[in-house]
Amino acid sequence: MTQDATQAIETLTALGDIKVWSLIVTVLGDRALDGRFIPSAQIAAVLEPIGVKPDALRVSLHRLRRDDWVVSRRVGRTSEYALSTKGISISRRAAHRIYAAAPARDDWVMIVADTAEQQEMFSARPGAARLTPDVFLVPNLPPCGANLTAKATWPLPGWAVARIVEPDVWQGYERLAIVVRMIRRTVAQAEPGMQDAIRILVLHQWRRLVLRHPDVPDAAIGGAWPGAICRAEVQHLLALIPRAGSA
Amino acid sequence: MTQDATQAIETLTALGDIKVWSLIVTVLGDRALDGRFIPSAQIAAVLEPIGVKPDALRVSLHRLRRDDWVVSRRVGRTSEYALSTKGISISRRAAHRIYAAAPARDDWVMIVADTAEQQEMFSARPGAARLTPDVFLVPNLPPCGANLTAKATWPLPGWAVARIVEPDVWQGYERLAIVVRMIRRTVAQAEPGMQDAIRILVLHQWRRLVLRHPDVPDAAIGGAWPGAICRAEVQHLLALIPRAGSA
Repeated sequence: MTQDATQAIETLTALGDIKVWSLIVTVLGDRALDGRFIPSAQIAAVLEPIGVKPDALRVSLHRLRRDDWVVSRRVGRTSEYALSTKGISISRRAAHRIYAAAPARDDWVMIVADTAEQQEMFSARPGAARLTPDVFLVPNLPPCGANLTAKATWPLPGWAVARIVEPDVWQGYERLAIVVRMIRRTVAQAEPGMQDAIRILVLHQWRRLVLRHPDVPDAAIGGAWPGAICRAEVQHLLALIPRAGSA
Repeated sequence: MTQDATQAIETLTALGDIKVWSLIVTVLGDRALDGRFIPSAQIAAVLEPIGVKPDALRVSLHRLRRDDWVVSRRVGRTSEYALSTKGISISRRAAHRIYAAAPARDDWVMIVADTAEQQEMFSARPGAARLTPDVFLVPNLPPCGANLTAKATWPLPGWAVARIVEPDVWQGYERLAIVVRMIRRTVAQAEPGMQDAIRILVLHQWRRLVLRHPDVPDAAIGGAWPGAICRAEVQHLLALIPRAGSA
């Protein structure tokens, strides 16, 4: 099987919707989560193998600045970009899941929300999974006498899993796991510029999936969970490509 | 504090609705759960101190026979009554709870019923407690992959307890426990005929309460549960009065 880096990039891109602004956020989240400024030329260089044109980059950077995702500054004749406070905050929360090598801690409890107010509260809770109108799975619940909590028996039945992970996310994990495993050797041998682009694409596709469902423990979904398999493949690949900022 | 047996009977009677037919079922359930026949004179003798007149007894026995709770036969000039097959079956199920010296086993699970069919099934399940439209507590659930089960954290919050035990049942246990404790010494010193009547009255009042809620473990309700206190008082008293049939 011959696989070169260009083909790897094409395959990863074909896995799903690539938005330029989202790629930029991935780059900054990967290299500048501490809020440091990155020259626009560096961002352009990473995204160029993925086919992002300078015009598209400029438009997206403008949009991100307008929406307060990034901030910019001029240094001599170059522009530099950094995540805004809001951008850092959102990216940090996402990073927690994107770079996790281990599955989520199994401190989830099932909670029965009796009143409309409670149901609204738990619906709004970041990371909670709603299984039925009044039954939620939540991580790390602080003890509270008014709540009816229970330790659910893992794995969850199929209908409950279906409330947590949509079918296209499930399939997305299956496909991404296969692709990431297939390109592993190619990546190890690719030149640094291509490695950087592949790293960003893998992070991007992985992030698109993990942020679409709450981070329930692997045991809750059960044996055939492609999310767990995909996590292992992605972390394995990321370990092969040093983060550009840290090089 | 002077308490005689007559006063004890009056106090127990005042605790709540006394139906003659229900007293008869209590007598037969206590003395003839195996389906043996009891002369009507014996039933009359037990209920006489409670103030049940022969006419009222006759009418109630007739009604119980018509509704297939009891069967009768003539032996010489006396009538004898026994529980019917239906009467035995219902009384056996109740006896399980009425004479239990120990709290219910803690093998209860919480179950989330996802579909209307499942909800109907668990609503119809004897002994199940419905906490919300789709959340049930059930004892002894056979394992089944389609069910979302969980081990609830005891004690349940107040709102869930309120779905299981109605306020007047809660108060009923409190009152019965006090009365049964108060009459303990009187009962030990009473003559056998009065002891028999008191035994039947205590069983009757106790049964009225226990059959009004599912038999959840004491730990589910929590520390202040008067049902557990009342159970201990009732069993203590019953142990003082030998069952007439076994004497």
